[in-house]
This record gives sequence, structure tokens and C-alpha cells, in this order.
Amino acid sequence: MEEKLQKLKDYLGEAADLYQVAALLGWDQQTQMPHGAAATRGQQMATLSALAHQKATRPEIGDLFEELLPWAQNLDHDSEEYRLITVSASDYDKATRVPSEFVAEESQITAMAHEAWAEARAKSDFSIFQPHLEQILELKKKYISFFPAADHPYDTLLDDFEPGMKTADVKTIFEALRPQQVELIQAIASQPQVDDSFMHLEYDEDKQWDFGVKVATAFGYDWNRGRQDKSTHPFTINFGMDDVRITTRFEKNLLGSALFSTMHETGHALYEQGVGHIWARTPLASGASLAIHESQSRMWENLVGRSLPFWEHFYPSLQASFPSQLGQVSLEKFYKGINKVERSLVRVEADEATYNLHVMLRLELEIAMIEGTVAVKDLPELWNTKMKDYLGLTPPNDAKGVLQDIHWSGGMIGYFSTYALGNLISVQLWEKFKTINPEIDDQMRNGDFSNLLSWLRVKIHQHGRKYQPQKLVERITGSKIDPAPYVQYLKTKYSAIYEL
Amino acid sequence: MEEKLQKLKDYLGEAADLYQVAALLGWDQQTQMPHGAAATRGQQMATLSALAHQKATRPEIGDLFEELLPWAQNLDHDSEEYRLITVSASDYDKATRVPSEFVAEESQITAMAHEAWAEARAKSDFSIFQPHLEQILELKKKYISFFPAADHPYDTLLDDFEPGMKTADVKTIFEALRPQQVELIQAIASQPQVDDSFMHLEYDEDKQWDFGVKVATAFGYDWNRGRQDKSTHPFTINFGMDDVRITTRFEKNLLGSALFSTMHETGHALYEQGVGHIWARTPLASGASLAIHESQSRMWENLVGRSLPFWEHFYPSLQASFPSQLGQVSLEKFYKGINKVERSLVRVEADEATYNLHVMLRLELEIAMIEGTVAVKDLPELWNTKMKDYLGLTPPNDAKGVLQDIHWSGGMIGYFSTYALGNLISVQLWEKFKTINPEIDDQMRNGDFSNLLSWLRVKIHQHGRKYQPQKLVERITGSKIDPAPYVQYLKTKYSAIYEL
Repeated sequence: MEEKLQKLKDYLGEAADLYQVAALLGWDQQTQMPHGAAATRGQQMATLSALAHQKATRPEIGDLFEELLPWAQNLDHDSEEYRLITVSASDYDKATRVPSEFVAEESQITAMAHEAWAEARAKSDFSIFQPHLEQILELKKKYISFFPAADHPYDTLLDDFEPGMKTADVKTIFEALRPQQVELIQAIASQPQVDDSFMHLEYDEDKQWDFGVKVATAFGYDWNRGRQDKSTHPFTINFGMDDVRITTRFEKNLLGSALFSTMHETGHALYEQGVGHIWARTPLASGASLAIHESQSRMWENLVGRSLPFWEHFYPSLQASFPSQLGQVSLEKFYKGINKVERSLVRVEADEATYNLHVMLRLELEIAMIEGTVAVKDLPELWNTKMKDYLGLTPPNDAKGVLQDIHWSGGMIGYFSTYALGNLISVQLWEKFKTINPEIDDQMRNGDFSNLLSWLRVKIHQHGRKYQPQKLVERITGSKIDPAPYVQYLKTKYSAIYEL
Repeated sequence: MEEKLQKLKDYLGEAADLYQVAALLGWDQQTQMPHGAAATRGQQMATLSALAHQKATRPEIGDLFEELLPWAQNLDHDSEEYRLITVSASDYDKATRVPSEFVAEESQITAMAHEAWAEARAKSDFSIFQPHLEQILELKKKYISFFPAADHPYDTLLDDFEPGMKTADVKTIFEALRPQQVELIQAIASQPQVDDSFMHLEYDEDKQWDFGVKVATAFGYDWNRGRQDKSTHPFTINFGMDDVRITTRFEKNLLGSALFSTMHETGHALYEQGVGHIWARTPLASGASLAIHESQSRMWENLVGRSLPFWEHFYPSLQASFPSQLGQVSLEKFYKGINKVERSLVRVEADEATYNLHVMLRLELEIAMIEGTVAVKDLPELWNTKMKDYLGLTPPNDAKGVLQDIHWSGGMIGYFSTYALGNLISVQLWEKFKTINPEIDDQMRNGDFSNLLSWLRVKIHQHGRKYQPQKLVERITGSKIDPAPYVQYLKTKYSAIYEL
């Protein structure tokens, strides 16, 4: 059986290599490739993706699982072998359930939907996008039909982004969270606003770059196994744990943009760089789920990077880089400025306090679409109603409303909730870490993040996809995903800042 | 039969895509990749290369040729279809003659030989490399045995780099060339040396970069289908004709290094960018041979970039970039300085007048090795003897002698002569072009290279590998590869510079 396991590893390794190469093509396209190469690159990518999929779903792998799965039942369920076999078998099952004609149909439909969405958003005219979204919704229902019936049809979609998570659980979590966040935001809105005008002065790009590099290095990002480039949208991408690259973008008149996105992407990258080498060239060489990934990026961005102790260490150095912009801005003023809460229409511009509400709104619409309780044509109105309820705002047009996100046009339904779940998990982990390492604030005041990183490495990073994400959270914190610590964190933080 | 031709194109296209992706991995490795990713990249490359080879040699392609080759005989032999079928059938025949075990053995042996060569060179001790080179020589003889007997066993090796070229022809060409070059160099050596000390001052790297970009742009390099990066050794690489990238390297105290290597690589890149889109995703989407490629790079580097009319246009701008280094250096002095002839031990540092002699020496040793008339252990002595005969110099050690080049350690025997042939062809083409466009000097004085590029595009670039290289030269110039124009060019040029 050892021989069959080795054979499985060889097959998985071959597919993993090809997926990594496809990722490199994507990275190159977004950071280096000359524009004129777009069509050529599309062709290369199509050939490579088809081949990677073919290698990942080859029937020989299925044959191996027929023997390896029963054999694995007698192994320690915490063992590397057991997890490798069961997790990759589950991936294989998912990948082979979906017919390749469906995959081809979906990529055609989403390619056209993407075009339509871009036009609809530019013209702020939902009717252009509506028939395409209706097609995508039909596709998603068809996709669900390839899988055994779940408690809720949305479960099947959610599972692709957050394995094991149930729609009912997310609903429960969000229903507990929503009223408390709404209430907090209303309380903040009734207080005098903090000043962040200094964030909007002109900041030299090279100096922003250097400061971001300094912070990423202090966090523990390994430049020998990574690099940073510029791109239109910041992202983290990896080709194995020894090649984890981040990107950022700069806005001259918005200091926070590159600064916090670098911290965010570094959080993702630290996770991928920390995945154990035992998982190399296997499907387990990656973060456990999108929510766990987001818990890492948001922890470094918000719990570390928007904290007072962090800036007690780094602010003098930032001031030294930008003396004319920040020389006269006190640490306290700066700290309040970077934590300004403002109800806004656009998710990607949202702050820590309001972000989750944007996510909840989307989740509710997605579930209703899949349940069939809302028609696509009614989405704009429903969006605006919820926006008014949760954030007290009414979008002036659909471009700033229901058309703002790219996700649906790409067929990504089931994704959004992971953003909010990641926020909740980040605070649960943080609270647990503090019970073991109560000196974290002092360590941050000294620019020392080594204990935090070591703990994350041991508890989360090294395991890759070994553990089901919710079980991983439970294993570490002793409780399920829970909104209470997050709400408490927000209240404490903003009570101080806004003197609630 | 049209359907079978389409099927062939699909198969060839798939393999071409994979080879292009493999090339991108190589580019990334040499310009972007973090060091820590080397092992991962090796694995990705091994998987991809094996797959590309497998796709390029699949038996279905051979089956198609069995029907397409006889059918093609009735087509116009100048037609796209005829050339596509016959050239790719010849590639297929070559690729399938060599057993994959041999390819694996060769890559193992050369990997070790490369290590040994690097150590041998560092210690200047040929005995470390000797047993590895003996192994490689045996490999090459084995390789030759896979092919039908040729007029000379070296023909088989030469054919991989210069299709259709015969050892006897190269010998004839070089035997006519050698005494004339030796004589010229002796004449130059008896004259007072020109001054190029100003080339060795300190030159700012960013300004060197900007000037190189300006020249490449003037030559006609399309930045929308290319980009420039830095690397240890300059190279040109492409992934289709719409993504042709160049690299350069800078030496602070040697202005000529980046300057002329950028022109050289631009010459290669203009060729690849000019290959017709009809050849996209076929094995014909590339230069006709190494010698033809080198004729392009050397033309832009030497016939254009080291000419007086070129600098009549560009020198004021170079002076403006480097006023303290060049402000007091006259155009005439600069022109002489960049054309300084100096007998030296190292090929890559050789000037236009001496370069071919370095190449001839290597070719003679390679042929003797393959003929078995020289034993590997005797190479150092023979090298030194020839160096004394041709250039009047004796290497102080083997590091500066027989161990200087990487080629043999990688199994590349048969390659060197293409460097010299490229020089000869560049002048033959140039002379032909001048008969059609006698105003080229004036055009260069105006910084206008459009007529030259257009002519090269029509006569050479667009055809890709459509024509056998020697036939291409004959087609354009009306004569075979001929050393006479090159010798005349050197005599005229250096008579003026050295007042012979």
C-alpha cells in the first residue's frame, strides 16, 4: 500500500506543479506581462489549465482512492497519511462530479457576464447585467445538482470556499452579529468625527514602498522566498511554500492604501510561507479555507497594524519618512485617524466597524437568490433597502450599489461571508493568543512579532489544509466561530477612540 | 486532408504553448524569482518539460505525418502548408529518434558536469572537468548514432543549431577567413593603440538604462510586446511573437557593457517580434537558425551601433546624459574608443576584429574531439597552442583558457561556429541592403532605422523558420555564406581607425 500511496503522491505532485505554473502565468500577467501579449497568454493559460485539470482528475487517481480510502480508516485520523488521502479524495470527488462541458459552459458564460457587468457598472444600468446574472444563477443551480442534497442548497456553494461550513451556521452567526454592529455604528455616528485629513496629503511612492517593506520584514515575511510587486489590485499568490509573492498599489493621496494592504497581503503570505514542507506538491499545501486565510490577513492588518502599541514603535519611523506631512501630527491623532469609522456605500473602502455589514447584505441576497425567494430583477431595490437598514445610506445609483463587486459576474456566489468570518476568527485567535502570551502589547511596542508569528506557525500555518477550518478554530480556541469576542473588541476599541 | 492538417496544428499548438510556458518559467527564474524557490522551480520545470516533450512527440503526430507528408509533395514548396508540414515533420523525426532514457541520462550527466566545470574553472584545474567532458563526448557520439550517417559525424551536431549546414562548408569558410583575420590583427597591433579610458569611468546605472531604452525604441523594439529586465547574463527570450523580452546587465565602470548588449539583444528581439502571426503556435515561430539570429543581433550591435553615422545622431544625447564623463570627449575619439581592437584571452570580451578567431579555435577542437584525433586530456595544451598562433597570446591558466566557456559542460557541442557565421551573414545582408537603400548612412544620421527594419522584416523576420538558413541567405543576397564581404568590411573600418 506504501507503493500505492507513493503513486498517489506522484500524480498529485504532477497536478500541483501544473497548477503552480498556471498561478505563475497569472502573476506574470498581472505584474509583468506586456499588454500586447494578452491573447497569447490566454491561449497558454487555456492549454495549461486544461492539462492541469486533466492530470488532477485522471481515472488512475480514482482507482487508487478505492484502495487507499478503506486502508486509511485504520490509520490515526490525525496522521499526515490519513489527512492527505481523505482531503485529496474529497477534492477529487468534487472535481470529477462536475462534467468538463459544464466547466467550459461556465467559463464562456462568465466571460460574457464579466463584459456585461463592466458595461453595466460603467453605465450604472443593472438591466445590462441582469440576463447574465440570471444565467449564472441557473448555472449555480445546475452545479448544486451535481452534488448530494445538502441541508440547504447554498451549502454546496459555500463549501467550495469554506469547507464544512453550513448556511444555517453562518446565518446564526450573522444574525447575532448584525444588530450589535448596527447599534455600535449608530453610537459612533452620534459622536464628533475624528480627523484624518493628514492621510490625504501627498506621499512619495518610493518612501511608501520602503516603509511597507520595513513592516513586512518586521512581521517576518521571508524575502528569500518571496517578493513584492505593483499591480492594479493587491494580491498574494504562491507557487509552493517557497515562492510566495505579494503585490501592492499606491495612491499618492491616500497613505493608508498601500500601508494597510501591504500588511494585509503580508498576513496572507506569512500563512503560505508557513505551510509545512511535508505538504509540498500536495493539495494540502495551502491555507485551510478563505475564512482562516482572512483571519490571518485581518489580524496583521487590523489587530496588529491598526493598534496603538504597533504605532508606538513604528510611528516615529513613519514620521521620519514623511516629516512635512506627519511631523506635527501626534501619535494619538494618527491612531484615531487610521481608525476613523465612516458609513460608506462601497465595501472595499469600508473600515473595521462597518465592513461586516457590507458582507451580510451580500450573503442575504445570495441565499435568497439560491432559495428562489428573490428574483434577479429585484436585487437593486433589495440592495438599497438593506443598505438603508444597516448603514443608513441610499446608493445614488446601481454602480455604487448592487453593481459594485466583480464576484457575481465571475460566477463566485458563496464567497462573501468568508470575509466577515475571517474578522471574527481573527479576534478569537487573538484573544486565545493573549492568554498564552499576555505581553504581546509590550512586544509590539518593541517591534517584536516573533512570538505571535511562532504561535500562528505552530497552531495554524504548518498544518496547511490538514484540518477542516471550523474544527481548526475549535482545536485552538476551544470554541466554535463566535461573534462575541469580535463585538467586544470593536466596542472596546471604538469606545476609546470615539469616547462612547 | 484539411481536417488532418488542422489536427496537426492543434497538436503542435498544444506543445508550443507548453514550451512557451517553460520558457516563461526560465525567464522568471533568471529575472524575478526569489532564491529560496530554486528547488521548487526545478520540480515545476521538470514536470512541464516532460509534458511538453511528451506532447511534441505523441504518436498521433507521427501518424498524421504519414498521410500529410506524401500529400504535401503536391503543394507549392514555397507554400505555408508545405513548409509547416515538412519543417515540423523534420523536428518530429529528430525528437523521436532520441530515446527518452538518453535524454534523462544526458540531463543527469550534464548537471554533474556543470558542477565539475564550475569547480574546475574556480580552481583552474582541468583535471576536475576532464572525466566529465569525456563522458559528454561519449554521449555526443551516442547521440550521433541515433541518426543516419552523415558526411561527417560532426554534421549531426551542427545541424541541431544550424540546420542544413555541413562541417566541410564551415571548415572551408573558416579556412578562407582565418589567415586574413590574423593578418589584419597583426597589422592593427603594430599601430598606436586608441584611447578608450573614458569608457571606464563611473556611469550611473539609471541613466545607462534610459539611454539603452531610447536606442532600443529607435531601432523599433515594440514595448507593447516586450519588456526589459536585469539579469546576470543578458538574453532574449520569447513566448510567442507577441511577448519578446530582453535583459541586460550593468557595469558601473564599463559603459560599453549594457550599451552594446542592449543593442545586441534588441537585434534578437526585433527578429522574434517580426515573425509572422501565421506561424503562431507552430514550431516555425522562431528564427531560422542561430547564425541567422546572430546576424540580426550583430548587425544592430556592430554595423549600426558601432558605426560613425549612428553616433553622429546619438552621441550628443549620450554626452548630455554623462556630461562630466563625455563632455570633453570628441565624437571621433568616442567612435575610435568603442571600436578599440585588443587581442585578449576571453571570447566574451573580444572585439569585432578578434571575435571570430576565438570561435574558430573552438570549432577546430570540437571537430577533432568528435573525429577522435584529439583526446580530451590534450585539449588544454592544444588550446594554448592555437591561441598563440591566432592571437599571439598564451593563457596564464586554464580558467582563462580551455575552461572559460560554459557550453561544453552543458553538452552543447556544435554551437560555437554559429557566432562567427552570424558575423559573416550580417555583412552580406548589410551590403545587399545598401544596394537597395544606399541612403542608410544618412538615415542613421537622422536616427531613422525604419527602412532597415522594414527590409529585414520582409526578407527575414516574417518567415520564421520557413526557409533553410543557408538557402535564406542565398535567396536574399544571391550568394552562399561568404567571408569576403566581412573581411572587406573589417579592413575598411579598421584602416580608417588605425590608419593602416
